Amino acid sequence: MSEARQAAGPIDFYFDFSSPYGYFAAEKIDALAARYGRSVLWHPFLLGVTFKVTGLAPLPSIPLKGAYSMHDIERSARYFGLPFRQPSAFPIPTQHAARAFLWLNDRSPARAREFGLAAYRAYFVDDVNISDLATVLRIAAGVGADQDELSAVLAGTEIKTRLAAEVELGMSRGVFGSPFLIVDGESFWGADRLPQVERWLAEGGF
Amino acid sequence: MSEARQAAGPIDFYFDFSSPYGYFAAEKIDALAARYGRSVLWHPFLLGVTFKVTGLAPLPSIPLKGAYSMHDIERSARYFGLPFRQPSAFPIPTQHAARAFLWLNDRSPARAREFGLAAYRAYFVDDVNISDLATVLRIAAGVGADQDELSAVLAGTEIKTRLAAEVELGMSRGVFGSPFLIVDGESFWGADRLPQVERWLAEGGF
Repeated sequence: MSEARQAAGPIDFYFDFSSPYGYFAAEKIDALAARYGRSVLWHPFLLGVTFKVTGLAPLPSIPLKGAYSMHDIERSARYFGLPFRQPSAFPIPTQHAARAFLWLNDRSPARAREFGLAAYRAYFVDDVNISDLATVLRIAAGVGADQDELSAVLAGTEIKTRLAAEVELGMSRGVFGSPFLIVDGESFWGADRLPQVERWLAEGGF
Repeated sequence: MSEARQAAGPIDFYFDFSSPYGYFAAEKIDALAARYGRSVLWHPFLLGVTFKVTGLAPLPSIPLKGAYSMHDIERSARYFGLPFRQPSAFPIPTQHAARAFLWLNDRSPARAREFGLAAYRAYFVDDVNISDLATVLRIAAGVGADQDELSAVLAGTEIKTRLAAEVELGMSRGVFGSPFLIVDGESFWGADRLPQVERWLAEGGF
């Protein structure tokens, strides 16, 4: 691996906890990046905020495309070799999980990642509704977070302002979907763009 | 190759002549299908009609997603190894081209396919506006069609009714985008699903 490639910056990975394609990418992106000597910055994101700007809507609500997408999600999980069960409630509000991720990430990106994957698997494999605050706290405790401290943080306004600012920053960088990856200034939307991301990393662009 | 696989039916390929991802799929689908002993039925389609049902809109008109998509189209062309130039007029009405394709296809699927690829390349490589009737007639003549006969057909109402019915039939099968492929009852939307189509053909599902 060349020095230039090793010196290259981290990959930005934007995801919404309610996005199944975001879950697929979350399971794949760190290993993919590591193959090319890259690290990944995980950014929790809220699709609901972008829908107000783009005029887009949650997949299940779209005639024809909604039915297709529900089927495509299950097939894509099998294609990626990942466990998946369509959640009973979908989509769901993911603010609590996103804020918990941000707070954990400031303290330990590794622990935040563990929480992120645990939350995604709870929702998309075990059909646990992660919109619930108590559930988010339980999952965070499961990766070693102080439940009382996190509970106090999530009740405050600071973390809300922080998440809103992170989402605003993402949108100013062009993020409108999940997963959304930025590699050396190049944007890739969708788990189906991972092969393009891989080629970009391997060849330094194409 | 097993007898069962050889006996399997053709792949349905829906495309709109104004869809760059449809162009990518058009360049790839016949060879892909042939590797698994399959033929392909090409179906010209009108995305504008589906937009009225799905509430979706042409890509360039969508904030954030539009700008990304224009970039993704050019990069995806390079990824697929296909020539591409963003047309000056995009998107465009494609009724004339779709109707010409249908008429040609009734007489010779091979000639219709030649016309389809020629029209796609004219639009997405040479920046020729194929919404123009005279241009459609010229491209059809280039693949050996009788220009006067086709001109009379396109001026009539029969071919209009026919295309409308074909689009209606596609929508009743769940088609809402371009490219859209149906393999043994399984639907795949998007040029980025070609790897899933290939695996489906290779493994008889997954």
